Amino acid sequence: MTADAANTRLASQVAFLTDADKLKTILRRTPLTDNSRPENSAEHSWHLALAAMVLHEYAPRGTNLQRVLELVTIHDLVEIDAGDTFAYDVQAGLDKADREQAAADRIFGLLPRDAAVRARALWEEFEANESAEARFANALDRFQALLQNLQAGGGSWMVHHVTRAQVVQRMKPIEATLPALWPFVLEVIQNACEKGHITD
Amino acid sequence: MTADAANTRLASQVAFLTDADKLKTILRRTPLTDNSRPENSAEHSWHLALAAMVLHEYAPRGTNLQRVLELVTIHDLVEIDAGDTFAYDVQAGLDKADREQAAADRIFGLLPRDAAVRARALWEEFEANESAEARFANALDRFQALLQNLQAGGGSWMVHHVTRAQVVQRMKPIEATLPALWPFVLEVIQNACEKGHITD
Repeated sequence: MTADAANTRLASQVAFLTDADKLKTILRRTPLTDNSRPENSAEHSWHLALAAMVLHEYAPRGTNLQRVLELVTIHDLVEIDAGDTFAYDVQAGLDKADREQAAADRIFGLLPRDAAVRARALWEEFEANESAEARFANALDRFQALLQNLQAGGGSWMVHHVTRAQVVQRMKPIEATLPALWPFVLEVIQNACEKGHITD
Repeated sequence: MTADAANTRLASQVAFLTDADKLKTILRRTPLTDNSRPENSAEHSWHLALAAMVLHEYAPRGTNLQRVLELVTIHDLVEIDAGDTFAYDVQAGLDKADREQAAADRIFGLLPRDAAVRARALWEEFEANESAEARFANALDRFQALLQNLQAGGGSWMVHHVTRAQVVQRMKPIEATLPALWPFVLEVIQNACEKGHITD
């Protein structure tokens, strides 16, 4: 590689990392556990990486932890342009895919071509939810939101009057991928219903 | 494992992940790139993971990316109790090690014993800065702060009247571990000096 090409490559990578900073300003519906403010998508992604490390022992044997860490680190980047779509918002879900594809074009397109292809493939793998790693990452995404709402005393379940059936449906990927966690999830939901944090 | 032991194990892991949420409230001196607010240590850790993925090609051959991702995900957890120690604060640096050891005892101690040992070993590896992975992670930690201050128009360099010699010293690990990035770092520092963002 010439010195010029190397400089251009590094400049692209720096531009991407600089743009990525905006994910810290994208707010989710789930609050911090102390309910002091909404969680942002960057710190949420970090929390998923930590959860992946701690809960990896419950994932199906052979689930590659490095791949999972890469998936969760990159999974929400498109929200920089597309925004966070609330899991229980059916209307916003309708054009979510289109908005996110356009976002992926721009954001991953900041990287050098080969790196852009790799990063986009990771995002698409997470979205497709087919590989063992993507299924684990998606299950963690659901589980982390459950813990946030549990600790915050209802969180987005309360604010948006989410029903038991909706939460059970949303948490279903945990039952298939992390069956050891499912009784705990059902217990959290049951308790939240009894406290009126989830609409029964 | 008995059902009781399994429940206890999961409860410990959930307690750890819940406590970890507090890292989102620990503020650093570096601002977001738009200078709108200080960055917190959780979103900073996510940014390092992303930087590790993007800049891994510049790390010495054989640097294990999974290990790096684990190191950066866990490296700041002790700040939950010990707070963020500003890199250029000599006074606060004096008892940093003691404060962080006590924090590590409590925070990693929330995990089941085997997991606590593994997590603490990761933190100690990052701190020791000896393995290839720890050196890469530490260099990224310096580089990310440089990018934040650069984009924010001076950031913590300006607010705390940091000098060129201090910044060059702080960035030195990049020269050794990511030499391909060093000319860019020196250029950023030179430009920041010319703009008065770093005290020359």
